[in-house]
Amino acid sequence: MLKVSVIGSGNVAHHLVKVFLSNSKVDLIQVFARNKSAFSGLVPDEMLISDYADLKDADLYLVSVSDAAIADVTSMLPFKSRLVAHTSGATDLSSIDSQNRAASFYPLQTFSKSKAVDMNAVPICIEATSEDDLKVLRHVAKSISDQVYEMNSEQRRALHLSAVFACNFTNHMYAIADEICRVHNINFDILKPLIAETAEKVMHLPPLQAQTGPALRQDQESMNNHLNLLTDQNLKSIYSILSKSIHAKKL
Amino acid sequence: MLKVSVIGSGNVAHHLVKVFLSNSKVDLIQVFARNKSAFSGLVPDEMLISDYADLKDADLYLVSVSDAAIADVTSMLPFKSRLVAHTSGATDLSSIDSQNRAASFYPLQTFSKSKAVDMNAVPICIEATSEDDLKVLRHVAKSISDQVYEMNSEQRRALHLSAVFACNFTNHMYAIADEICRVHNINFDILKPLIAETAEKVMHLPPLQAQTGPALRQDQESMNNHLNLLTDQNLKSIYSILSKSIHAKKL
Repeated sequence: MLKVSVIGSGNVAHHLVKVFLSNSKVDLIQVFARNKSAFSGLVPDEMLISDYADLKDADLYLVSVSDAAIADVTSMLPFKSRLVAHTSGATDLSSIDSQNRAASFYPLQTFSKSKAVDMNAVPICIEATSEDDLKVLRHVAKSISDQVYEMNSEQRRALHLSAVFACNFTNHMYAIADEICRVHNINFDILKPLIAETAEKVMHLPPLQAQTGPALRQDQESMNNHLNLLTDQNLKSIYSILSKSIHAKKL
Repeated sequence: MLKVSVIGSGNVAHHLVKVFLSNSKVDLIQVFARNKSAFSGLVPDEMLISDYADLKDADLYLVSVSDAAIADVTSMLPFKSRLVAHTSGATDLSSIDSQNRAASFYPLQTFSKSKAVDMNAVPICIEATSEDDLKVLRHVAKSISDQVYEMNSEQRRALHLSAVFACNFTNHMYAIADEICRVHNINFDILKPLIAETAEKVMHLPPLQAQTGPALRQDQESMNNHLNLLTDQNLKSIYSILSKSIHAKKL
């Protein structure tokens, strides 16, 4: 069975460790965390280490740390020529110290520690520099997810950018809607079926086809009324730039 | 049983007619469409009219036409002092010709003819000028939906505005993500689990708590890399204004 070690203790590391522990297709042998207490109750003591010198031989080391720490952490590894993959969407393979074989194992999802995620439905994007390494990544990825995609660093960077729009900016739209509701004593719950249906629609229709609303129809009266309702200059600017963009990209 | 007539043939009218036809709690007696063929195959011929003079006595007339047409259409009704409700989020009761009793019956959802909607989960926002009229609206609304909210015109306008952010602008974020994927030969399907989880998260967490990403962390390096990847000036502007707004509203 392939042996995997996870290095790191952030949100992604937590979700990966959890899914590997409940998985009989690969063998999670060690978890490295500078502060072991980050995994207390989740990882058995004998598996948990905080000294790089204790790292055992594994087929794959998953380095799940912040983008800025990848170079430092991988330079501390006390071995050579082994397969070391980061879990970052925004980072090239070259950020991994060249003493080992660099790879990427990027789970595309928004992870919060407080929210369980069905890892089986999380796309895993893999990249390596040889077919042998890709085989290892593919096997480990398929052991936890039904959706495994091979892509190069340039595509992964673009995917990470598109995920900022599809997730981070989308969530900010929800936050602004919530703010408008609070100001007018409206329960945010009213919007939940609309939010769910808006996401559900693009599972079946291309987003440009799913578009509705005053900006698409160029309903100037509604748009002017909305701009008058918004008192915050920042929200007015966001409303205007997005309405213009919807119209410009109209099918 | 309460008698209802629907006037109009747009997306909302279609979904309302469909749900009333399959409903035994209220009696859909007539559907008015200038062009009867809009409902061919859906509405029995004897129920379908295109002449206002043919409108029979009903407890509620639902006028589901474009915002701009509400005043005109309601001025054509050949009767007085009956209950007439529009289905618009953005329009005051005063847009309904004063010869009848004005009300609003606003289903908050994004409707496309090609996509079925579970009306039972669609919030219906009702407003009227008397308790008797509210009773009629409440009964009809509850016959098709579990979620009925009473609100005034000012709240409905604010809700309509917040729905533009939660639905129209959110869908535009999906469209931009799709565009970035296409440019880089990435299948948009990869983003679907992320889109679903982003929507699912705010069913349980307030949006400000669900926020993740480079703008929240003020990860300047990732943000600069993203801005460099974007070649379209419009997308750069959207990226910057939304990143700033996320940071400004940070919890």
